[in-house]
Amino acid sequence: MASNRILIAQGGGPTAVINQSLVGAVLEARRYREIDLVVGARHGVRGIVNEDLVDLGQETNDNLERVAATPASALGSTRDKPDLKYCQEIFKVLQAHEIGQFFYIGGNDSSDTVRIVSEEASKSGYPLRCIHIPKTIDNDLVGNDHTPGFPSAARFVAQAFAGANLDNAALPGVYVGVVMGRHAGFLTAASALARKYHDDGPHLIYVPERNFSIESFLADVKRTYDKLGRCIIAVSEGIHDASGEAIITQLAQSVERDAHGNVQLSGTGALADLLCDEIKDKLKIKRVRGDTFGYLQRSFLGCVSDVDQREAREAGERAVQFAMRGGRNGSVAIKRTGSYASGFELVPLDSVAAKTRVMEDELIAPSGTDVTDAFRSYLQPLLGSDMPQAHRLRAPAVPKVLNRS
Amino acid sequence: MASNRILIAQGGGPTAVINQSLVGAVLEARRYREIDLVVGARHGVRGIVNEDLVDLGQETNDNLERVAATPASALGSTRDKPDLKYCQEIFKVLQAHEIGQFFYIGGNDSSDTVRIVSEEASKSGYPLRCIHIPKTIDNDLVGNDHTPGFPSAARFVAQAFAGANLDNAALPGVYVGVVMGRHAGFLTAASALARKYHDDGPHLIYVPERNFSIESFLADVKRTYDKLGRCIIAVSEGIHDASGEAIITQLAQSVERDAHGNVQLSGTGALADLLCDEIKDKLKIKRVRGDTFGYLQRSFLGCVSDVDQREAREAGERAVQFAMRGGRNGSVAIKRTGSYASGFELVPLDSVAAKTRVMEDELIAPSGTDVTDAFRSYLQPLLGSDMPQAHRLRAPAVPKVLNRS
Repeated sequence: MASNRILIAQGGGPTAVINQSLVGAVLEARRYREIDLVVGARHGVRGIVNEDLVDLGQETNDNLERVAATPASALGSTRDKPDLKYCQEIFKVLQAHEIGQFFYIGGNDSSDTVRIVSEEASKSGYPLRCIHIPKTIDNDLVGNDHTPGFPSAARFVAQAFAGANLDNAALPGVYVGVVMGRHAGFLTAASALARKYHDDGPHLIYVPERNFSIESFLADVKRTYDKLGRCIIAVSEGIHDASGEAIITQLAQSVERDAHGNVQLSGTGALADLLCDEIKDKLKIKRVRGDTFGYLQRSFLGCVSDVDQREAREAGERAVQFAMRGGRNGSVAIKRTGSYASGFELVPLDSVAAKTRVMEDELIAPSGTDVTDAFRSYLQPLLGSDMPQAHRLRAPAVPKVLNRS
Repeated sequence: MASNRILIAQGGGPTAVINQSLVGAVLEARRYREIDLVVGARHGVRGIVNEDLVDLGQETNDNLERVAATPASALGSTRDKPDLKYCQEIFKVLQAHEIGQFFYIGGNDSSDTVRIVSEEASKSGYPLRCIHIPKTIDNDLVGNDHTPGFPSAARFVAQAFAGANLDNAALPGVYVGVVMGRHAGFLTAASALARKYHDDGPHLIYVPERNFSIESFLADVKRTYDKLGRCIIAVSEGIHDASGEAIITQLAQSVERDAHGNVQLSGTGALADLLCDEIKDKLKIKRVRGDTFGYLQRSFLGCVSDVDQREAREAGERAVQFAMRGGRNGSVAIKRTGSYASGFELVPLDSVAAKTRVMEDELIAPSGTDVTDAFRSYLQPLLGSDMPQAHRLRAPAVPKVLNRS
């Protein structure tokens, strides 16, 4: 019989709905009289090894509901990616606090941590239920229709490009918007949902699933600009050339790398500036503006998909149900069960752990600079209700008096 | 007796509510049976000189209402700043189309255009009523309590910093957010309204009304980071040193200048990147991230203050009332008439034209890196209803087992 103590933590980049999953798990746990302690770790796995733990049982339902509606990891997060030794430290603390169920809300690195910890427990013969709860704005977890956090970030990106399109139509020029996404282009592709009228931007979309060439890029921009007198471009921060080298490293004098050796892509406007400079220099277009959506796209207070909120909440609830009734470890996965409806399954940890999903070929247009109808059908219901709409004047021209021609 | 034809145009940077003013004027004009033509100029004054005009009388009320709720200039805008000769061209077209009332929605440059055109009409003895309708996210028009467009942009900035604060609390480090504002710091100062708890960011706010020194900046950041383990900074794009030189020009290898000789500040992430590099280099802090809010802060679809919407609408309505009943030219100005209530006056064009309001001393804290309660009281009611709120967990710590100390 496993212990009746639960530990929950949040890892990786915050999202608009990660607290829904936390609160879903905590409130679901309250339904079980055999669970008598729900512990939260501050700042993910780092808080576990440091025994920086809080008693979530002493939170009111009311405050939990308010926290659920607040973006970013309420328990704090970490970028630590535990190796075997680190996982052994985690397990030691879980054991010392007599934890029987370990829930970790995070992306593919976090699911790998859950997998290693579960193996350590198994090797020691310690009864520990280990459940990974999915979360990532990148939408790059395999086995999931989509991941909690992605729909809200996608909504931000769509609303941002819809607004940038209106701004650019009023003051024409070239606009480059750089969107998060190292390997998976889902979030950048979400910019396509900003379009309403046939000549709306983004007119060009570049995802890391396709090789990027400056020459083709400039030709694409020129063609669009010559036709429309303006051009809006959505670019993934992770775009790279055919050799796999990130376009940003071709610019930056020095690049920052994280603990995993990954080049730091966010928190700098360098890529947008590089691309804008190329357009100004080579195409001689004067008004060229670049924005890097940066942390706003994952943290902006007040831009959230209600579908995403509900699903993230349910992912947390289902995690506890799987732990209490399922009898096995795993990763909670969202499956699409209708148009639109979703459900949850518990899939094996090693089917998700440390793997990366990228955009399937059928979601990317043959041109390599747009998405397909299949992608639009996939994303539209996830954006949630009440998406704001843009409208145009339709007034006819007044005949010229001075310059009749 | 003036002609019964109205011409309206939109100039300068788009805002979230500039179409409210347009639609307010058009719908108000429909109430007067003596007005028989309402013409819109495409892309501001440029559309006037090019006779690129549309018949707004052929818009339905329904579509006008939808356009009113859409951000960015529906008629299109321009950065042209007409000189005397350009204004004479404008006047020539107004005369040719027998326009009796000229409305221009814009900032201080636009009000100067209205002033010059009104003088040309007066010199020619042509009866032309000229009204400037205020608009600018910079909030830098003199004689106005605030300007339509500013409250919605301020709301975006407050929501962005509230989210960045949560994100930064989850994954601590230094965060620099660069906000629009060349001479006036109002929009950057709006970041202060993001704070709720006593240790919330932004912890430091830099506006162009105060000289910026890299040395003081680094000392401020170090002091905050040493105390809180993190630091969130709001910076105006227009910050400059004691000699008046923009901080961005100290970095950029080449700077772009507009028709007025102004350095291009927006559409590049250079300033944020420079400041982040300084912090990394000099303070040896590892996690330093910079975002440039760029065009999102003025164009994001779906972030608007309802107070701003109503006031922008009324500014357009009142402009037509002033024109029809007031018997003089002028600029519509918002006055605060209660806490909170506002009203409109028609002030002389030369009291607004080409002048720039900056933040009054009593709105900036003596430290030079924060705002005062007076500023908070000033801005709070303008942000509108339903500002999203952030909430925290309040769970107490669980005693350590392994590392009792």
